[in-house]
Amino acid sequence: MRDFLPEEVLRRKYVVGIVEQVYRSYGFEPLETPAMERLETLLGKYGEEGDQLIFRVMKRGEKLGRLLQDSPGEDDLADSGLRYDLTVPLARVAAEYQAELPRIFKRYQIQPVYRADRPAKGRFREFFQCDLDIVGSTGLTVELEVLAAASEVLRKLGFTPVDFSLRLNHRTILRSLMSACGTPAGMEESVLVAVDKLDKIGGEGVRKELLERGLDSESVARLLEVFGGKTSDNGEVLTGLRERLRDHPEGIAALDDLEWILEQSGNSPAAGCLRIDPSLARGLSYYTGAIFEVEMKGFGVSAGGGGRYDNLIGMFSGREIPACGFSLGLERIILLMLERGMFPADLAGKPQVLVTLFSDESTPASLALVHQLRRAGFRADLYPEPGKYARQFKYAEQRGIRHVILQGPDEIAKGVFTLKDLESGEQREYPLDADPGEISF
Amino acid sequence: MRDFLPEEVLRRKYVVGIVEQVYRSYGFEPLETPAMERLETLLGKYGEEGDQLIFRVMKRGEKLGRLLQDSPGEDDLADSGLRYDLTVPLARVAAEYQAELPRIFKRYQIQPVYRADRPAKGRFREFFQCDLDIVGSTGLTVELEVLAAASEVLRKLGFTPVDFSLRLNHRTILRSLMSACGTPAGMEESVLVAVDKLDKIGGEGVRKELLERGLDSESVARLLEVFGGKTSDNGEVLTGLRERLRDHPEGIAALDDLEWILEQSGNSPAAGCLRIDPSLARGLSYYTGAIFEVEMKGFGVSAGGGGRYDNLIGMFSGREIPACGFSLGLERIILLMLERGMFPADLAGKPQVLVTLFSDESTPASLALVHQLRRAGFRADLYPEPGKYARQFKYAEQRGIRHVILQGPDEIAKGVFTLKDLESGEQREYPLDADPGEISF
Repeated sequence: MRDFLPEEVLRRKYVVGIVEQVYRSYGFEPLETPAMERLETLLGKYGEEGDQLIFRVMKRGEKLGRLLQDSPGEDDLADSGLRYDLTVPLARVAAEYQAELPRIFKRYQIQPVYRADRPAKGRFREFFQCDLDIVGSTGLTVELEVLAAASEVLRKLGFTPVDFSLRLNHRTILRSLMSACGTPAGMEESVLVAVDKLDKIGGEGVRKELLERGLDSESVARLLEVFGGKTSDNGEVLTGLRERLRDHPEGIAALDDLEWILEQSGNSPAAGCLRIDPSLARGLSYYTGAIFEVEMKGFGVSAGGGGRYDNLIGMFSGREIPACGFSLGLERIILLMLERGMFPADLAGKPQVLVTLFSDESTPASLALVHQLRRAGFRADLYPEPGKYARQFKYAEQRGIRHVILQGPDEIAKGVFTLKDLESGEQREYPLDADPGEISF
Repeated sequence: MRDFLPEEVLRRKYVVGIVEQVYRSYGFEPLETPAMERLETLLGKYGEEGDQLIFRVMKRGEKLGRLLQDSPGEDDLADSGLRYDLTVPLARVAAEYQAELPRIFKRYQIQPVYRADRPAKGRFREFFQCDLDIVGSTGLTVELEVLAAASEVLRKLGFTPVDFSLRLNHRTILRSLMSACGTPAGMEESVLVAVDKLDKIGGEGVRKELLERGLDSESVARLLEVFGGKTSDNGEVLTGLRERLRDHPEGIAALDDLEWILEQSGNSPAAGCLRIDPSLARGLSYYTGAIFEVEMKGFGVSAGGGGRYDNLIGMFSGREIPACGFSLGLERIILLMLERGMFPADLAGKPQVLVTLFSDESTPASLALVHQLRRAGFRADLYPEPGKYARQFKYAEQRGIRHVILQGPDEIAKGVFTLKDLESGEQREYPLDADPGEISF
C-alpha cells in the first residue's frame, strides 16, 4: 500500500478528471460502494486464486471472543472482505436496487480495490480502477459505447492509436475455434489459460504446456496455427476466421457481431483503435460475449479491459440481467504517462503566491492582504510565522511557488506590498488596493 | 456501510468540489493514505473505546494457518486495521517523510474512515472526513488560517453565521479553570468528560455525575458556575475568564492567544463566526492548545472540529513536531443541506440529451449523431436498443433527461433529426449539420 504525496494526488486527480468528463459525456452516472463487502458476496467470483487474495476483516466483540475458544478456521473468523474489483459490487447493487434503478443502468465507478498480492512494479495492494458498465441490455450498441468511451479516454489523455490498441475477441469465437481444432469439451478452460499466455511464453511455451496438459499433438498444432496468427489486419483475420468457422454457426454469428462493431466504430473515437485478436482470452470466467483488452505498445502488460458478462448479476438477483463493461487501471496509465512526460507542467492546484510574514507587528496587515487575495480568486499561501526571508523563500521554492509577497514596515507605511518573482529576482510594488487583474503572478 | 447511488455521489462531489477549492485557495495540498494501516499505528491513539472500534484485517496464508493451531488472541490474528480518522495517518506520514516534505506541511485530505460502531442516523461505519492541517509551526496564524478556511467552506456551501458558529476554547484555559475551581489534579479527565456533556445532559446531570465521581460539592458548584455560563457575548466571556484566572498566568496567556485569534479573524471569513466557549472540551486526548468545534444551529451534533496537537506526531517521529487542524464531517453537512434544500436543482453531470434508436436500420445514423453531439461538447446518452419510443422516453424521464432526439427513416431521408422537449412536448427539427450553438437543450 502506498501514501500518495501531494504531487501524486494531483496527477491522479488530473487523470480522473479527464476520465470522469468523458464517462459523463457518454451518459454514465457515478456509483460508489463501500470498501467492505460481505465475504459471501466476494467468494467464488474470482476463481480459487482470487479467493486467496481477498483481505478478510475480522468479526468483532463477543462474537469473536466465543469463536476464538472453539479452534476456528480462517473463514469463521471473518464476516467481510475488502472489495477486490468494482464489477462484483456493481452486480450486487444492480440486483439489490432493481426497483430504484432504471432498467438500463449506465454507471461509472472510480475507487480503490484491494488484493493481498505480492507487490511488484506498478502493482499494489491498493490500487484504483475506473470502471464503466452498461447493465440491462443485450444490444450491440452497448459494446460500441463501451469501446468508444474507453478509446476516447485514452485519446483525451494524450495517447494516439499508435500508442494503444483495443484487442477484441468473443467468447463464442474462442469456444468455436477450440471445437474446430478438436479440443475436447472438458479441456476448454485449460486451453484458454494456456492461450492467454501466448504473449508471455510464446508459441513454444504454449505448445509444451498444452501437451503436458494431455492434449494430442494434432489439436495442439491446429490451435497454435489459429491462435498464433501474425497478421494484425482486421480484414485478413476476419476472412481467416470465417473460413475456419464455416461449420460453426454460433461462431459465425459472433463473428458477424464483431464485424458490425468494427464497422460502426468507424464514426466513433474507437476508429482505428480496434484489433480483432482471436488469441485474447481474458482470465475471468464470468465473461460470456465480446471481450477486449487495452494494449499499450511497449508496455508489456494491459492497462485495462472488459467484456460482456450476461450471467454474473443473475448470481445476486435470481434472474439474468445482461451487462457489459470496461475497467481502466489507473496506476499503469499514470506510470506510462509519467515515463512519457505526458502530464502538463503545471498541475492545477498549487498556490500561486506566498504571503511572507516580516514581524509580529506587520502580521495583521499581511493577514488582511492574504484574505484580500483569496477573495480576488487567487490561491494564496501564508507563511505561518515571522522570520528570515531566506527561510520563507526556501519554503516557497520547495513547494514550487514562484511568487512571494513582502510587506515590512516600509511597505506598510507606504500602503503598498512588494511582489517578488523568485525565478527572475524581479520585484515590483503594488498599492494595497491594486486591481487584482493587474497583479501578474 | 452504504452504497452511494448516482444522485448521492453527485451531491457529495458538489460539496467536496467546494471544500477542495477553498482548501486549495488557502495553499493546502492534497494527501491520500491507504485504507489500511499497521495495527500498532492505530492502537493507543483513540482511547480504549476507540481501540475497540477499529476494524481489524486478518493475517493471511501460512502465517495465519500456524497461528490458528495455537489458540490465538484477537490481536495476534490481525496485522492491520482500517483507518479510523485522517489525523493519525497524517502524523505517521509527517514523521515518515520528514526529509521529503517541506518543514511546514499544509495538507488537506478527503477520504473515508471506518469505525465498527453501531450505525445511527447520520452515522455510518464508513464515512468521509475532510481534514486540513498545518504541520510544523507553533505560530498562532496557524489557528487563524484553519478557522478561516473552515468558516469559508461553510459559507461557500451556503451557510451563514446565523446557521453556524465555531465554538472556541483552549486546553490550558480548561486546566487553569479546573485548578481555579479546586479540582484535584487526578480528576481533571473525569471533569472534562462530564463538562463535555453539558449540552446533552444539562447542568443538573453534570452536577450529579461530578458528585458521583467523588468531587466535593463546593468544587462542583464552582465548576458549574464557570462552565454553565449563559452569555454568548465574547467580550463578556473573556472579561469573566480574566477575572477568574487572574492568579493563573498560563491561563491568562492562553486567553491572550484566543483574544488575538478573535481580533485577527475580523478580516477573515471567520469574522462573526467565532464564539469563545469555556465548556468546550473535545473528547480526544491528543489536543494541547486551542480547540474548536462547528455548531450547526438546530442540529444537535457537531459537524466537525479540531484543534492544536503538538505531541501526536512525536509519537511517530521521536521528536516533537507541532500541528493544528480541522476535520469536517461530510455526511452531516450533506444531511443538513438536503434538509434545508441547499443543493442546486441541477447537479452537474447528468446527460443533457438522450439519442433514441428507431430501428436496426436507423441505428448507424443515430450512432454517428451521438458522437457528433459529444464532439460538440454535449453530454449525450444513447438508448442501447431500438424499440418503442414510450419505453425510451420513460427511461429519459427516470434519469432526469429532459430532451430526446428522434431519428426515424423520414428524418434520415430529409437529413434532419427531431429534438423533443419531454416536459413541454415541443418538437423541433434540426439539419444534421446544425451549429451546436443553435441546438437548445
